[in-house]
Amino acid sequence: MKKVKVYAPGSIGNVGCGFDVFGLALNVAGDILEVEENNIGALRIIDIIGDDSITRKAEKNIVTVAAQALLNEVGSKQGFDFTLTKGVLAGSGLGSSGCSATAGVFAINELLGQPYSKMELLKFASVGEQIASHQVHYDNIAPSMFGGFTITRSNNPLEILQLAVPDNLYLAIVRPNVIIKTNEAKQMLGNTMPLANAITQFGNIAGLIMGMQNNDIPLIGRSVEDLVATPIRSKLIPKFDEAKEAALSAGATGFNIAGSGPAMFAICQGKAMAENVTKALKQVYIADHAANYYITQADVKGTRIID
Amino acid sequence: MKKVKVYAPGSIGNVGCGFDVFGLALNVAGDILEVEENNIGALRIIDIIGDDSITRKAEKNIVTVAAQALLNEVGSKQGFDFTLTKGVLAGSGLGSSGCSATAGVFAINELLGQPYSKMELLKFASVGEQIASHQVHYDNIAPSMFGGFTITRSNNPLEILQLAVPDNLYLAIVRPNVIIKTNEAKQMLGNTMPLANAITQFGNIAGLIMGMQNNDIPLIGRSVEDLVATPIRSKLIPKFDEAKEAALSAGATGFNIAGSGPAMFAICQGKAMAENVTKALKQVYIADHAANYYITQADVKGTRIID
Repeated sequence: MKKVKVYAPGSIGNVGCGFDVFGLALNVAGDILEVEENNIGALRIIDIIGDDSITRKAEKNIVTVAAQALLNEVGSKQGFDFTLTKGVLAGSGLGSSGCSATAGVFAINELLGQPYSKMELLKFASVGEQIASHQVHYDNIAPSMFGGFTITRSNNPLEILQLAVPDNLYLAIVRPNVIIKTNEAKQMLGNTMPLANAITQFGNIAGLIMGMQNNDIPLIGRSVEDLVATPIRSKLIPKFDEAKEAALSAGATGFNIAGSGPAMFAICQGKAMAENVTKALKQVYIADHAANYYITQADVKGTRIID
Repeated sequence: MKKVKVYAPGSIGNVGCGFDVFGLALNVAGDILEVEENNIGALRIIDIIGDDSITRKAEKNIVTVAAQALLNEVGSKQGFDFTLTKGVLAGSGLGSSGCSATAGVFAINELLGQPYSKMELLKFASVGEQIASHQVHYDNIAPSMFGGFTITRSNNPLEILQLAVPDNLYLAIVRPNVIIKTNEAKQMLGNTMPLANAITQFGNIAGLIMGMQNNDIPLIGRSVEDLVATPIRSKLIPKFDEAKEAALSAGATGFNIAGSGPAMFAICQGKAMAENVTKALKQVYIADHAANYYITQADVKGTRIID
């Protein structure tokens, strides 16, 4: 029986100002997915390692729902067994559902002989992602699929732009031990935003792109400020304000929530700064023994075969 | 008596998606300003050539109000005579008030021995610009001062970013013969925008920057779409929809209103395309004998001494 093993990186959606539009692939928090053909003509989840909260039911799991969408499109009745090793808990804000969805469709596409390009695979991955967020958006699945920094310029028709990430951009990430569900976090946001805030956000979006292109880490940091989701979501995250102040005091050029949180990222120039910032964040969350810390750079390869 | 002659280029504010944030300096529609010291210890407008609608009262004219703001800051009691030659009518959407304001402060700064940098001069120019728009914004004065494509990343503190413009970017501009006052056009906009529209705009803003950086004229064109002001302001402009359709049919990659209009710009790849687009626009406005047409590229020098 044919089989394949793939890796899909975690990611930060929004990257602060780019709500539903920007995404950054990380070299941490990715999923490993092994898929093997079976002879029962159905999708089956054999095991999920690293997160007991995720359903094993193939008709409800993000990986298999996305994979099934691809199989339906090509008209295949083949069955496959899935073994998923989670790199990060669901509900962390580090693109857990996005990397599961991209891993699922990428693996099936490989086993079918690559009928689709990575760009074409996004639409199948989005079917899986919808289970988590109840909306179609690409701010996690695009970076997870392609690696690097991605921009959803348009949803309809879908247009994804890619951008190189500065070599000296490091992120210090902390994930405190609370779970925030993406769809609930979305519902807290209103349907409108003040025009003055939108204009501020326009400037930050342009600034973030300029910073990435010009390797200007301070400009990137200044530009990750967000007025859409952060003012509301930061209240759901224990000690957000203290964490931000600690990170900036330790040298970070910017700080915000990863996706819908609770993970947070600090923009750092070089590894030493990221280490200093992590020390400062550990002081803030010293009583939260289940907090996780990551020092990471961008993943530049995206979803890929391993082994 | 000391004297100086300066040129300040016209500009397109907003550039579609970058409402109040983006600006593009043009190699047309600029003002020429001659300033000479006088011995009456007051500012005096000697003549304004090319636009009879502009006030000659020094305490109300954009040029002299901006110049006076600078003189007040340095504590100078010197008097100056101003002769202004307008490159474009006020109320065109081509940055008429912005280039008058930048010309005024730049000229006085020269005559005083350059106490300020161009960046520092922006705040004085904005005092003049406020007369026209009743708001402080830099989407015309920044490109007019610096040339090229500018981004107001932040108003407070003021941060202006600059971006090179592709060599093969041409703009076909048409100004139909109606006057739209900036402050009235602003008042028609609401104080909020739908979040879904803001997200679309975020993608376009990122796309426009990417297009400029990558010399991708089709991407620039796709990205100049705007959901803040264009849906409302386009209704004030005779035949906007026909003009847009004609420009795109003639090859333009994008089309929108310059600032608050009524001038409109078409994004074109190369001069030949801009000429074709202009032909198509002339057919639309064939009955409007007072319409003006410009084929232009970016001005890359900004406000400067001439002669």
